[in-house]
Amino acid sequence: MAAKAINGVNVAGLGGVDPGGTFRQIYDTLKSGLLQDDAFDYTDEACQWIATMLEYNVPGGKLNRGLSVIDSYKLLKEGKQLSDEEVFLACVLGWCIEWLQAYFLVLDDIMDNSHTRRGHPCWFKLPKVGLIAVNDGVLLRNHIPRILKKHFKGKPYYADLLDLFNEVEFQTASGQMLDLITTHEGQKDLSKYKLPVYNRIVQYKTAYYSFYLPVACALVLSGENLDNYVDVKNILVEMGTYFQVQDDYLDCYGDADLIGKIGTDIEDYKCSWLAVQAVERANESQMKTLLENYGKSDPACVAKVKGVYKDLELQNVFAEYEQTFYEQLISSIDAQPSKAVQDVLKLFLHKIYKRQK
Amino acid sequence: MAAKAINGVNVAGLGGVDPGGTFRQIYDTLKSGLLQDDAFDYTDEACQWIATMLEYNVPGGKLNRGLSVIDSYKLLKEGKQLSDEEVFLACVLGWCIEWLQAYFLVLDDIMDNSHTRRGHPCWFKLPKVGLIAVNDGVLLRNHIPRILKKHFKGKPYYADLLDLFNEVEFQTASGQMLDLITTHEGQKDLSKYKLPVYNRIVQYKTAYYSFYLPVACALVLSGENLDNYVDVKNILVEMGTYFQVQDDYLDCYGDADLIGKIGTDIEDYKCSWLAVQAVERANESQMKTLLENYGKSDPACVAKVKGVYKDLELQNVFAEYEQTFYEQLISSIDAQPSKAVQDVLKLFLHKIYKRQK
Repeated sequence: MAAKAINGVNVAGLGGVDPGGTFRQIYDTLKSGLLQDDAFDYTDEACQWIATMLEYNVPGGKLNRGLSVIDSYKLLKEGKQLSDEEVFLACVLGWCIEWLQAYFLVLDDIMDNSHTRRGHPCWFKLPKVGLIAVNDGVLLRNHIPRILKKHFKGKPYYADLLDLFNEVEFQTASGQMLDLITTHEGQKDLSKYKLPVYNRIVQYKTAYYSFYLPVACALVLSGENLDNYVDVKNILVEMGTYFQVQDDYLDCYGDADLIGKIGTDIEDYKCSWLAVQAVERANESQMKTLLENYGKSDPACVAKVKGVYKDLELQNVFAEYEQTFYEQLISSIDAQPSKAVQDVLKLFLHKIYKRQK
Repeated sequence: MAAKAINGVNVAGLGGVDPGGTFRQIYDTLKSGLLQDDAFDYTDEACQWIATMLEYNVPGGKLNRGLSVIDSYKLLKEGKQLSDEEVFLACVLGWCIEWLQAYFLVLDDIMDNSHTRRGHPCWFKLPKVGLIAVNDGVLLRNHIPRILKKHFKGKPYYADLLDLFNEVEFQTASGQMLDLITTHEGQKDLSKYKLPVYNRIVQYKTAYYSFYLPVACALVLSGENLDNYVDVKNILVEMGTYFQVQDDYLDCYGDADLIGKIGTDIEDYKCSWLAVQAVERANESQMKTLLENYGKSDPACVAKVKGVYKDLELQNVFAEYEQTFYEQLISSIDAQPSKAVQDVLKLFLHKIYKRQK
């Protein structure tokens, strides 16, 4: 069989044995396109800077969010063969989400003064970069509408796509604000770490862009009006919340070798799901232990906090939460009128249910 | 005469004795609207944070860019009475430019490690803010599409407005990148400061958003297709370049009391118009003086650089540049087919020609 090609990229293999390979080729196409933008006359140095910056920050993650767009779109099309152009456009939207993620990570790492990301020094930690990384974050963000304009201008849903990315970016930045304010307040009063506060942060900071956005992109590409998918949005936000709860659980109880990092939520005074559960359940003496030891990097303090978690049996609390969440979510999904939409939602759920990393 | 009101705001006085007052009222309307956004469920603390952050960063400038939208729109309408809604929408676009400016300034101050802005400490310098300011910059940027969606969604030119703001933001961030890279390279080799390099930085970093964007907003609001206004764009970019040349000139030769600050371009190793002219004209011995003294904060070094400027008669070079620029620009403007467009361009030119501050 002859290889299928669109915009010079072979798309036949997508969703097959090596989906990342083809998806990756489309990244190269998008990168080249950005460096030949009518709106900016690149010097050689500028071209080199952007190419290096993109390579360092965009394609190095797990690409789950980006690849989810294509998986979702295929399910929504209910087994109909996708045209080369349809596959290409789904990949482009997938990469836009990866660009959005890169933008958030570059700036978050500056705000958190992080050291490493994906096994390398954070971009702003490179000596030649420093705070130029703020502007690089801005550029990454600006690339999204450049890519959308190049590939979607003139489509009937073009303004909807712009609105979608704008809305989700706004929600994520608002979630980041809540997180920053809450951690600031929490350092004065740990009892402010309550479940509704936690849920609100996670919903905005993580769930919209990681879970809702890939499906929303696939729906828009299928010609659907997102106003008709409020239930789907809510289910995906629930799933995104569960995903973050798992993250917080694994930060303390996961296998560091599997996760690839050693958790520091306790040391960093994070409004983590475990902290919220502990504050809710602690008696006076346990609360005193938490107040004296939470947010300190001394391993003895961390051990005392973990001791309270153990006495409160938070591992069981998590197991019960996970079970109840799963059952409720499956029944919400089964109540969805469209079988294709059910399949999309179950695909997402089963990718993360009981994950160990 | 009864006061005209739209969205609860009196708009009758705009462009009159106290144009800033009414324009300012519309800022309050926009701020309230942002704090009641369907896409985000504000807590009291979040609401307070945003209100404070907006107040600190958005309305405190000279508002020239924002007010220019209304002035331009009136001229394009050739004396026809504007409806209340037309005035309101022009003010909204004016404020979007002010929001864009606030976003750039908040982030630029972080990157430059600046201390003061508009007579107050920079936002990120406030102890309770710090690097949270990075996210606040992102939020300011996100407010623009929120405002546009609220007031322009459904208009035939809605996607054009989104594209315009996206394009100009991209150009500005790209100009900032050029500036950062050039200053970095220039510190190793002053002779890299050449006129085409300078012009490219200024065009992208300043001219598009400060000069082209207000007129482009007024044109879009008048139902015009921006593709038909490439000449107008070029003229405004020329004017923006002249504006920055003046800025650089005044940094060295302006009256500090009038400008409100003491220039530090020489100390900061800036790729300023004066440095570019000096590098172009210097003989071997003058070049040696520049290389040894440019970019140093010691007042004796600054004086030596100024001595070279004096020997090269850069004040005369500037006066000649200004004269030639003015004559050429007037003839380009007079070649424009539309009298209304000529009026807009001359309004901008005469606001800045021979300015002392």
